[in-house]
Amino acid sequence: RISWISDIVVVASPENIETMKTIIEKYGHKRVTVVEGGITRHRSIFNGLKVFAENEFSSHLLQKPEVVIIHDAVRPFVEEDIVSKVVVAAKEHGAAGAIRPLVSTVIASAADGCLDHSLERARYRASEMPQAFLFDIIYEAYQQCTDYDLDYGTECLHLALKYCKTNAKLVEGTADLWKVTYKRDLYAAESIIKDNLSQEVCVITNVKETLAQVGFLLPESLKSQIKVEATSVPLSKNDSCLQNIISGQCYNFVCVNVSSEAACFYFTLKLTSNVDFVFSSSVLLQAHLDIPENNSFSIGMEDLTTIKKFARETKKKNILVYGLLIQYK
Amino acid sequence: RISWISDIVVVASPENIETMKTIIEKYGHKRVTVVEGGITRHRSIFNGLKVFAENEFSSHLLQKPEVVIIHDAVRPFVEEDIVSKVVVAAKEHGAAGAIRPLVSTVIASAADGCLDHSLERARYRASEMPQAFLFDIIYEAYQQCTDYDLDYGTECLHLALKYCKTNAKLVEGTADLWKVTYKRDLYAAESIIKDNLSQEVCVITNVKETLAQVGFLLPESLKSQIKVEATSVPLSKNDSCLQNIISGQCYNFVCVNVSSEAACFYFTLKLTSNVDFVFSSSVLLQAHLDIPENNSFSIGMEDLTTIKKFARETKKKNILVYGLLIQYK
Repeated sequence: RISWISDIVVVASPENIETMKTIIEKYGHKRVTVVEGGITRHRSIFNGLKVFAENEFSSHLLQKPEVVIIHDAVRPFVEEDIVSKVVVAAKEHGAAGAIRPLVSTVIASAADGCLDHSLERARYRASEMPQAFLFDIIYEAYQQCTDYDLDYGTECLHLALKYCKTNAKLVEGTADLWKVTYKRDLYAAESIIKDNLSQEVCVITNVKETLAQVGFLLPESLKSQIKVEATSVPLSKNDSCLQNIISGQCYNFVCVNVSSEAACFYFTLKLTSNVDFVFSSSVLLQAHLDIPENNSFSIGMEDLTTIKKFARETKKKNILVYGLLIQYK
Repeated sequence: RISWISDIVVVASPENIETMKTIIEKYGHKRVTVVEGGITRHRSIFNGLKVFAENEFSSHLLQKPEVVIIHDAVRPFVEEDIVSKVVVAAKEHGAAGAIRPLVSTVIASAADGCLDHSLERARYRASEMPQAFLFDIIYEAYQQCTDYDLDYGTECLHLALKYCKTNAKLVEGTADLWKVTYKRDLYAAESIIKDNLSQEVCVITNVKETLAQVGFLLPESLKSQIKVEATSVPLSKNDSCLQNIISGQCYNFVCVNVSSEAACFYFTLKLTSNVDFVFSSSVLLQAHLDIPENNSFSIGMEDLTTIKKFARETKKKNILVYGLLIQYK
């Protein structure tokens, strides 16, 4: 996602190494090396750093970088801007990390479980990720670490200060950097992703006259609410055209057709079978335009069954298909 | 919600006083006094405490309590258990407050925006709400406060320690006590509420033979997933019966009827018009059992229009009505 990052080292627990490799292969991620983690946070990070420095640790030693960024998988919404800021600050100061204001007051408890003292909230900050370091500094710090540090410590900035006398530059981060920790955080993360995915819709129609009209009116009325990409697909079953629509990473499609045509199914099938949806969570609204010929629904039971079958099939892939019957007078 | 709390003082900003009073009246909350807040947290809390001690502050002076609980509206999911624990601890120690483990390391920054030192995470805790105090202690502390305390302080436990030499007992709270602060917290709170509301469903059928069967099978199959309350409502339009169903504070209803009967509408209308839904967010699934007489749908267009109209009307009240047509062979 960020082009100026040359290598990405993913540290995973032994039992998750294979899953991680499958994910990387499936989505064609480049520049990624998977490394086995340790039993604590610091031991895992140290393992990750070794890939750049110790020949025996990895079959293909990666080129030692000037600056290394350390990040947590539990902060999935990190923006390029903050990554860039900590890197620039690390180049200048040797170390840098994202911080956030404290949400609650921090207190120290005495041995008897009573309040010892409370900290003045304005003087302290929560240390978040990403953090960046000159590689030589953080690697030196980890090499000098005691076993106690490796087993009980949690803060990389602390190691740089303790062993390399490097006072990290603190960079104010955005609220998105919060750590997905509790069940409620998963709820929040899910809602944020859904919110982002539902910002855009792609309307697909074919070239028939009636549809062209709908295909024009529908995007126009939707535009006031979300970003709309409208495409008229010729019946010639042009695959590359569809691929273009999809490459924009849109997750919501409205497909409009008249009931007498099977074209829509062709499109929807293509959409859902050819494409490896990154999030595998997509909504496809199948708008079925019905022009009653003798004042009755012209949609047959056969069509309904096909839609239902199709919807059931795609649901397994986390793609939701909705059918919408529009009576056109 | 907690019967042993004798009085509740809600401190609101001047512009929200009227809204707050309307809410209290609308939902028939008892024991609640609304008080105007100050420009800082401590000034607002002080105003709340004065109701119990200063005659001129409130037209009806409330009886001074032994223990007072201080809580934030931004922690809506507080359980009776933790409230009870801090009260018991406050009675013994003079002060008590809920705490949570720190999620991120806390650091102190130097004047130049660089790291000064980081705190050992295990020794510190986040101070949360609720907190409880012997009334005389916290009131004494607020009376001795300096203007600096009132303007810049945030921690009540700190005031009790500073002015009354009372070391508050710290009580481990649950993860639910987190402070709804950012947009993501609203997402999380919404999901938690929806989760709770969707734990229970009420199935309403009338006494017709076919329905009795459905009314039996449906709850049975649902029981494995959620809490089900099934009721067979006689056609005699017994209002008190419905009221009983609703008083259980169930937010989801499935109403089963055969297409030839209008009874269902009677029930649904009663449900939605008579009841003041606390959350005003409810789902009503209108299952329409269709027994085809001459192998065609017997539901008329008129029925469909009525359902649609009804759904549109109730949606304004945040009550979602879904129609489900079941063909019964």
